[in-house]
Amino acid sequence: MAEHRGVRKRPFILLGVACAVVGLVLGILIGFFAIPKSGTPWSAALTREGDPSVPARLQRELNPDNIRENLRTLTARPHIAGKEMDLGVARLIRDRWLEYGFDSARLVPYDVLLAYPSRDPNRLSRVSLLESDGTVVAESQQQEAGVNDPEAEPPFNAYSASGDVQGDLVYVNFARAEDFQTLVQGLGVDATGKICIARYGKIFRGNKAKLASQFGCAGLILYSDPEQCAVAGWAVWPDGWMMPSTGVQRGNVKDAKWKGDSLTPFYPANEYAYRLDEQDANHPTIPVHPISYGVAVEILRNMAGPEAPVDWQGGLDITYHLGPGYTGPASSRTVRLVVNQDREVRTTYNVIGTIRGAVEPDRYVIVGNHHDAWVYGSVDASSGTAVMLELGRALGKLKAEGWRPRRTIVFGSWGAEEQGIIGSAEFVEDHIRNLQERTVAYLNCDSAAAGNFSIAMSASPLLHSLIREAAKKVPDPHEPSKNLYDTWRLKRPEEEGNPDTRPKIGRLGSGSDFTPFFQHAGIAALDMWNDIDTASFGFGYPLYHSGYETFDLQDRFIDPDWTVHQSVGRLWGEMAVTLADALVLPLDVRDYAAALQKMTDELRDEHGARLAAQNIGLEHLESAIAKFTRATTTFRQSLGDVDKLNPLAVRAVNDRLMKLEGAFIDPLGLPDRPWFRHVVFAPSSVNTYAGQSFPGLADALLDIDNVNPADQATRWELVRKQLAVTTFTVESAANTLVNNLF
Amino acid sequence: MAEHRGVRKRPFILLGVACAVVGLVLGILIGFFAIPKSGTPWSAALTREGDPSVPARLQRELNPDNIRENLRTLTARPHIAGKEMDLGVARLIRDRWLEYGFDSARLVPYDVLLAYPSRDPNRLSRVSLLESDGTVVAESQQQEAGVNDPEAEPPFNAYSASGDVQGDLVYVNFARAEDFQTLVQGLGVDATGKICIARYGKIFRGNKAKLASQFGCAGLILYSDPEQCAVAGWAVWPDGWMMPSTGVQRGNVKDAKWKGDSLTPFYPANEYAYRLDEQDANHPTIPVHPISYGVAVEILRNMAGPEAPVDWQGGLDITYHLGPGYTGPASSRTVRLVVNQDREVRTTYNVIGTIRGAVEPDRYVIVGNHHDAWVYGSVDASSGTAVMLELGRALGKLKAEGWRPRRTIVFGSWGAEEQGIIGSAEFVEDHIRNLQERTVAYLNCDSAAAGNFSIAMSASPLLHSLIREAAKKVPDPHEPSKNLYDTWRLKRPEEEGNPDTRPKIGRLGSGSDFTPFFQHAGIAALDMWNDIDTASFGFGYPLYHSGYETFDLQDRFIDPDWTVHQSVGRLWGEMAVTLADALVLPLDVRDYAAALQKMTDELRDEHGARLAAQNIGLEHLESAIAKFTRATTTFRQSLGDVDKLNPLAVRAVNDRLMKLEGAFIDPLGLPDRPWFRHVVFAPSSVNTYAGQSFPGLADALLDIDNVNPADQATRWELVRKQLAVTTFTVESAANTLVNNLF
Repeated sequence: MAEHRGVRKRPFILLGVACAVVGLVLGILIGFFAIPKSGTPWSAALTREGDPSVPARLQRELNPDNIRENLRTLTARPHIAGKEMDLGVARLIRDRWLEYGFDSARLVPYDVLLAYPSRDPNRLSRVSLLESDGTVVAESQQQEAGVNDPEAEPPFNAYSASGDVQGDLVYVNFARAEDFQTLVQGLGVDATGKICIARYGKIFRGNKAKLASQFGCAGLILYSDPEQCAVAGWAVWPDGWMMPSTGVQRGNVKDAKWKGDSLTPFYPANEYAYRLDEQDANHPTIPVHPISYGVAVEILRNMAGPEAPVDWQGGLDITYHLGPGYTGPASSRTVRLVVNQDREVRTTYNVIGTIRGAVEPDRYVIVGNHHDAWVYGSVDASSGTAVMLELGRALGKLKAEGWRPRRTIVFGSWGAEEQGIIGSAEFVEDHIRNLQERTVAYLNCDSAAAGNFSIAMSASPLLHSLIREAAKKVPDPHEPSKNLYDTWRLKRPEEEGNPDTRPKIGRLGSGSDFTPFFQHAGIAALDMWNDIDTASFGFGYPLYHSGYETFDLQDRFIDPDWTVHQSVGRLWGEMAVTLADALVLPLDVRDYAAALQKMTDELRDEHGARLAAQNIGLEHLESAIAKFTRATTTFRQSLGDVDKLNPLAVRAVNDRLMKLEGAFIDPLGLPDRPWFRHVVFAPSSVNTYAGQSFPGLADALLDIDNVNPADQATRWELVRKQLAVTTFTVESAANTLVNNLF
Repeated sequence: MAEHRGVRKRPFILLGVACAVVGLVLGILIGFFAIPKSGTPWSAALTREGDPSVPARLQRELNPDNIRENLRTLTARPHIAGKEMDLGVARLIRDRWLEYGFDSARLVPYDVLLAYPSRDPNRLSRVSLLESDGTVVAESQQQEAGVNDPEAEPPFNAYSASGDVQGDLVYVNFARAEDFQTLVQGLGVDATGKICIARYGKIFRGNKAKLASQFGCAGLILYSDPEQCAVAGWAVWPDGWMMPSTGVQRGNVKDAKWKGDSLTPFYPANEYAYRLDEQDANHPTIPVHPISYGVAVEILRNMAGPEAPVDWQGGLDITYHLGPGYTGPASSRTVRLVVNQDREVRTTYNVIGTIRGAVEPDRYVIVGNHHDAWVYGSVDASSGTAVMLELGRALGKLKAEGWRPRRTIVFGSWGAEEQGIIGSAEFVEDHIRNLQERTVAYLNCDSAAAGNFSIAMSASPLLHSLIREAAKKVPDPHEPSKNLYDTWRLKRPEEEGNPDTRPKIGRLGSGSDFTPFFQHAGIAALDMWNDIDTASFGFGYPLYHSGYETFDLQDRFIDPDWTVHQSVGRLWGEMAVTLADALVLPLDVRDYAAALQKMTDELRDEHGARLAAQNIGLEHLESAIAKFTRATTTFRQSLGDVDKLNPLAVRAVNDRLMKLEGAFIDPLGLPDRPWFRHVVFAPSSVNTYAGQSFPGLADALLDIDNVNPADQATRWELVRKQLAVTTFTVESAANTLVNNLF
């Protein structure tokens, strides 16, 4: 029995054990692999890569017809900053974002100094050509022909001094420093006390106004010369997109040492802000007024004095003379320049919308554009606004379908950009602590379509790689079988004339709302637009800041099928979603090293001998650049070793990536313009539009050989100091990438 | 058969299934609960609270005998900054840290301007009382009696101007602004061109030197009056710890607008630094020299002029007169002040050591102390160094036993603190980007034991709660059955005379190495020490900066059983480890709100009526404070809701906590002293040692009723501006705590 039982029981036991073992193993496998631990419900989301289908779905969603309708709505009426129509646009944007399903959208007001032309019939701004008895020979118009909306302000140069000056005219070409030097020293014409006339172009008009004032002009007339806006053989508006003789470029003429509200540098223009006296705001001290070439030709005709040099001859059918005054039967004529502007502190509204991040809501990817315009703004900047609205709608749709970005996407629609980048600057000044701490990048698009030739781009080196990769994923607006990257580099190659190089990405100067983010706060930024073939034409889109920037301009000439706008939206969205969703931020620090090396080479080429003559070597700067380069290489290698399943390790490298740009900020700012604090890039001090590398050094070295001897030693001391500051800043930035620094 | 088999098989199957099910369930349980997922090996460590046994083990490990031996070694020789002996101390510290098992320890050099007294027999600094024929009546000594080490520098006031002046003496009490005003306006004594003599005390000596210069003195003699250093009935050194008649307080007399190297404000003093000319470095412009009261009594005796006011009478056994000059048989005597100092750029070394964090190596808890001393420095600051070495050893032991902190602990042993907080300031300037980004807090201990009466503490409000909780865990050095918190609040209660209140924690001024971290970089900081009963005595430890700060002073009088030192180490270690290991940082933002409210009340009490008379209201500031208070309450509540199992959510709240202090930094700095950038706390501009709340406002309001009328409007404008800046900064700081700001 015992044996029998034994014999009979053994298989039972064996079977039971075997089944139990199989069950156990199976159970362990199931328990371990198949059931997520409730203790770590976040682990998957925290370490997940972005869904690669999202950007593709976003691209498909962006609809040209919607953009067209957006622009038609936005440009229905003029919407200058600080007035009711612009507030209406801001409200429309807020309402749309809420309708699209944004998590928040609100108007954010700032009280800033704005300037408008007087509409008092007795105080109208104008330029007149007068006989000695006061008879008017020619006079500028109060409005461009065909611009009939009563809300359209007459052409003016905002923040000009008001005044009434009369006298002899002098022609000063583009009113650049070199033009004035040529005029005074080379050509022997004294501009002191004269009314100067300059053509628009080459540099920012605010720089022209300051130079005219520095060279003693009593007033400055700005006009659009056909050479810069109406090339022979091309139809002018309304038959084409060139500038007609009646068109006038508006624009502000501030050359302040800061952007944003004139009265509240560094701090937001809120209800308790401390406001400067207006005379401390660096506004022009002379009257400045813009006119059309139809009026300019009458005023420039019959001028006395030497013939202007060949390269000063513009596109009008006259021989340009320098003046002063007139010759022959016209010799008793004078020019009168009257400017009356009213300045007042008024409210401008930013619109801020958000789609909150699911995993890292405290990290922001910001897309921005301004909603104000000089008149209708169908290019500047409502073309960008029309695209931004459609981008918002598409992202809202993705969100409704279940997607939410890893990081927060912030939409900024800025007010009063045209008056000096005011709304965005006040916003940055107001929230600078949070923005510097939390922002991954700022992606600006002002004029989405100023032309249809090619995309154009300026950016921080940190974003170059992101831009290139995104462009490879977006179809060309004209040849959808090709991608934007390939058509772009054909039209605008990095190395001039060599389409085998990468597409050209420029350096950020100023001129749009990226400025406060990049130059003041040290946030990686880009600015993109489509343009005409500026390299061939030698100028940007001709109807710039005129009343002819209408819906029809886009619909008939620039982008009749609206695919240029669409492609901007696709590129913008591709970049925004990639930055918002990527586990490891797609910022390539090696491009910064390459950019710094190139800039140092340029510095050495331009100033090396001059510096050596003063016993100033570049070896410490070069050593800092080399250190930076090594740090980027090491950092890049270490990125490959990061445990992507460890959210803190990923966050740590992302923090270093996104804060590298901020490491180039010197809190003391640049000499003589401390609001600009980026040591590597600033707007050129001779042309606000252009980007200047190593600006502290460049300004100290600017024309140093021609400085008067008494000041030269001071300037060389400044060069020495700025070289040390630049070197230290580059080295500091390198250190932010180093592990275990201490 | 079939049936038979069937009958026979069923139990087999049932058993097998049963065993399999049991096994499966067991397996699932094991697989789910008992085996950590290899895909998330980090999850436990990333979300684990610090081991509560660690601080307790650390406290037990700190050994008084080791601290005693450390101090004996450190004080064996004089070790003034920039000389070989101090480099030896620095090397010793580095070697010890490496020996203790730190992950790194290295010397970090800076080349800074240091000042030493000339040792040339023909150029010795001195104060002499002379007869008209040149006979010396009394003269200061080149060394304090009993100080015999040839490496001990003669007493001097570093960065005094060199010079040789002779003339009439004037007594100026403590050389405070109010003393000079009383002297000149109330008492009618002209200090212009006179050699002034002032007693040490009340304010920082650098402020005295600047005021003496501003009031036209030709030179300044500083002496230690017995009233401030040798109370009757207490034995003087070497029989006690009061100051003997031969002792002299050394110390620098810089009142620069920045701390750190005189020549390189804002930037590190490295090999390529741009250095100011010495005349731009804000050094005193007159000779300044310190003497003992044994010499001072001879010089003050027989002075002419009115009797000094009662509260100007010091502790010497004479009647103090104001001068100028002498009376009676002494009337032809004069005083000669000779100062010869050599300044040179020399290398000072910081020692930086680290114990790297296991989970967040990019977050730093920094403990710091300086290693240089005027002579032996047995109090200042080697007592702190002795403790820091023992703390390092104990942490190294814990590490050897398997512990590693969550965050990195950085040890900083600073050079050249005595010459103007130089080593730490250069380090902060050098690494400010990483330090601002990564530092949780800076915990300073300079003189661990200047007395044995009680612990003393100054700190950012953010650290108050941490300090109080830590003090509750440390036994009192004299009554181990009580905790430090209870004995401390008995001796130094928050509310004077009320031991039921919490212990008093002061506001940070300047005076040690926390200054660059807190005032310049905006890193939460504290400073702690033990002191004599300063409230009763009316002064700090008497042998301060004299050659009598020796090992014996500690071993015989201040801390014979070394438990005061030990308790400092325990408190320091408790706080450091808590900050380094806590999952959620133990920083309480509500204490900041309370502090701001208190400061605003003080501001209103002191200046409300004066402000109202100028139509300046405090309502916006009060509204910002209220907003800040609400933000801290909401933030504190939200801390309770944070998913502690989500490492990114925890990191996000920790980032806000640790960066709140930095939100009070204004990059533009305070008016007239932009290196000081904390808007809420700064060293008082009339006494560098003291902490001033809302310093921009306070400076603008300082003595404003007595400013000459021409400047008064300017000062009121400054008040308006600083009120706006202060309000904005508080509001900005509140915003850094707000979720979903946009």
